Amino acid sequence: MHRLYDSAISGNAYKVRLLLHHLGIPFERIEMNVDDGSTRKPAFLKINPNGKVPALQFPDGRVLFESNAIIFYLAQGTKYWPSDRWDQGQAIQWMNFEQYSHEPTIAVVRHWIAHLGKTPQNEPLLPAKIAAGERALGVMEGHLKNHRWFAGDAYSIADIALYAYTHVAEEGGAFDLKRYPAIQDWLKRVAAQERHIAITA
Amino acid sequence: MHRLYDSAISGNAYKVRLLLHHLGIPFERIEMNVDDGSTRKPAFLKINPNGKVPALQFPDGRVLFESNAIIFYLAQGTKYWPSDRWDQGQAIQWMNFEQYSHEPTIAVVRHWIAHLGKTPQNEPLLPAKIAAGERALGVMEGHLKNHRWFAGDAYSIADIALYAYTHVAEEGGAFDLKRYPAIQDWLKRVAAQERHIAITA
Repeated sequence: MHRLYDSAISGNAYKVRLLLHHLGIPFERIEMNVDDGSTRKPAFLKINPNGKVPALQFPDGRVLFESNAIIFYLAQGTKYWPSDRWDQGQAIQWMNFEQYSHEPTIAVVRHWIAHLGKTPQNEPLLPAKIAAGERALGVMEGHLKNHRWFAGDAYSIADIALYAYTHVAEEGGAFDLKRYPAIQDWLKRVAAQERHIAITA
Repeated sequence: MHRLYDSAISGNAYKVRLLLHHLGIPFERIEMNVDDGSTRKPAFLKINPNGKVPALQFPDGRVLFESNAIIFYLAQGTKYWPSDRWDQGQAIQWMNFEQYSHEPTIAVVRHWIAHLGKTPQNEPLLPAKIAAGERALGVMEGHLKNHRWFAGDAYSIADIALYAYTHVAEEGGAFDLKRYPAIQDWLKRVAAQERHIAITA
């Protein structure tokens, strides 16, 4: 059976759970604590040398890490990976946008405020992180004003990647999605897909 | 002709120049200043709504942004993209590692010290960035002790993505690659590939 090194508060791990559920692939969940150093201990570094969740162990023992790489791999040959080459490039483009410009701002702000709480270390960094998160949401809103999905004409892993932290962006109170009506409509379209599951599922 | 929105100091842009050169695709370079706000002006936001270089405009006018997406797209059907599905997953894994754990630490430290200079704003953040950069180099060293390349048995876009900022990591003086002998050997293997060009070319 597939074994997912997981965290209930991680949107990155949720991407993988959501796609596994879409695909009907059963899996075992290993819940990791992402805040107490567990993922940096030698036992886990044998699973993912970069010390992060998610990591997916396949039935043959091989492991893939990096959330967007896991969903890329699982989606090959399914309807969740675009068939058109340009659309494939767009999917990778938006998934890189997500990991570089969206996750380090929107997800980190949520984690700092909603999970860890503000500290003397993180509080001075919040305004710049929030401003960068608003810019990322603005880029998404601009795209979604003219497109239903991020890569081509169908729901794909690019939408899964961006949905994971966008739909919980308001947790912590730093972001207000009411300012982004096209994003709100797209969130509803994603949640209406067959075999959708909540991040809390 | 292809038109690359480029920056001579950007390793991300260099990834695209290097692959275009490998593939023998002629292109026009549009040099952008990445530090004076030019990439956030309305004219450039029509090219890349996320306001960053590189962006590649194709002869038909379409634009792809995000360095790793551009090299993913260009490499399809060439020897620079692995043919094996597992190796493809590995390539995407390492390219995501590069954008999340390597570029924001190693490239940002280089840029802050070697290009912008230390400031009251960036100096307090340097120790944590440098420590995270050392961790990323450690992860690479661990892989390269047992593998010649990052994805499968051949040089690929995963190597290009990681080479871009690793080979200039010492600029600014924060990192010392002598501590990473397997990385040093791999850098030489990359530079020995046919049609290799320097970042300064």
